[in-house]
Amino acid sequence: MPSLVHFTLDPFSRRMRLALAEYGVPVELIDEEPWEPSPDIFELNPAGTLPVYLEDSQTPVCGIEAIGEYLEETKSTRVSLIPGDVFERAEVRRLVAWFDIKFYAEVSEPVLTEKVIRRYLPREKGGGGVDTARVRQAMTRLRAHLDYIAHLADHRTWLAGSDLSLADLAAAGHISAVDYFGDIPWAEYPVAKSWYQRVKSRPSFRPLLADTVRGMAPGPHYADLDF
Amino acid sequence: MPSLVHFTLDPFSRRMRLALAEYGVPVELIDEEPWEPSPDIFELNPAGTLPVYLEDSQTPVCGIEAIGEYLEETKSTRVSLIPGDVFERAEVRRLVAWFDIKFYAEVSEPVLTEKVIRRYLPREKGGGGVDTARVRQAMTRLRAHLDYIAHLADHRTWLAGSDLSLADLAAAGHISAVDYFGDIPWAEYPVAKSWYQRVKSRPSFRPLLADTVRGMAPGPHYADLDF
Repeated sequence: MPSLVHFTLDPFSRRMRLALAEYGVPVELIDEEPWEPSPDIFELNPAGTLPVYLEDSQTPVCGIEAIGEYLEETKSTRVSLIPGDVFERAEVRRLVAWFDIKFYAEVSEPVLTEKVIRRYLPREKGGGGVDTARVRQAMTRLRAHLDYIAHLADHRTWLAGSDLSLADLAAAGHISAVDYFGDIPWAEYPVAKSWYQRVKSRPSFRPLLADTVRGMAPGPHYADLDF
Repeated sequence: MPSLVHFTLDPFSRRMRLALAEYGVPVELIDEEPWEPSPDIFELNPAGTLPVYLEDSQTPVCGIEAIGEYLEETKSTRVSLIPGDVFERAEVRRLVAWFDIKFYAEVSEPVLTEKVIRRYLPREKGGGGVDTARVRQAMTRLRAHLDYIAHLADHRTWLAGSDLSLADLAAAGHISAVDYFGDIPWAEYPVAKSWYQRVKSRPSFRPLLADTVRGMAPGPHYADLDF
């Protein structure tokens, strides 16, 4: 069985779990905690980033773009997650990069670093109390992203076009990791909420709703489909 | 004719100019200065990042991964820049991400921000004198990357395998932008140097060697093939 080296709340790992489930590929999950990298991880992936995908005992596939394209090249006989013509496919990839670069830098990286990573990191490696100002700034910036999601979802069935794509899964990977802490003002963003409700209701999402991080319970609506 | 909205020293724009030339696609270059974005750029690309590729009057293609994959899907009849089987293609994409994320964060972003962007930015937007400590740290980190390039080039003809690929062009895009300032200790890294010499000698590279940024002459060996 293929395996995925991942961390529960890592937005990139979450996207790949969703993608694998949408393609119908069962996968064994191997836990890795970013604040305490196992000696193996740099053997698998010199950059040390998560997730890493292993197709049985084959060469590891590393890097989120590489894994996404690899799965599309090898598993998309029934379901495509980079669907459409060349311009529609470019739109999927543009939005994936929007979430991986912009959303990550502005929202998910600061939230996860402050609320999770720094909590478990030893003090000499940068661990310590939460920088609440940094989290607050991230949650303010989140609002512009919810507006952008609403703008897209208002004009299209799914974020990149008429079909579910890797763009929805990328967005959901980042948003669901932030939503674990329960502070997203969903009530103020009904269109973005309705899009997220549709993603969250998919069978591929179910395992993510059961996730927990040791010592940190999710917010009360994290696993709720009617949040 | 297709066009590319670019900035001369932007590593991502450089990669796309190299790729277009390798594919044999003539392109009209439209200059954009990152410290003074034109009003149009956000119309073309909501993220505001460079480069943006325009296939005649068609939909703009934005985001470096999207452009790379788009060109491979539409222009690779003679030359492929993501060559090989699925694992070899994954290796190309892994290395592209290595340079775009790791090399960029550790080396090219600090060098370009400090040496170019901050020089032209108004003071109230973060412009000002060079943070020399930040540049020095970047140049120290560059050494680990030159070692990694040497390690790859020692085992393979090109960085990702036996053929020239987007990985070489990604690396060359970042390295050539830093090399503009002339401080790379090439003499200490003969294997990395020999790889770079081979990339630099390609006809696709020639236009980049003629680049200049206003008010900043390149280092004495920037355009030299025998540096």
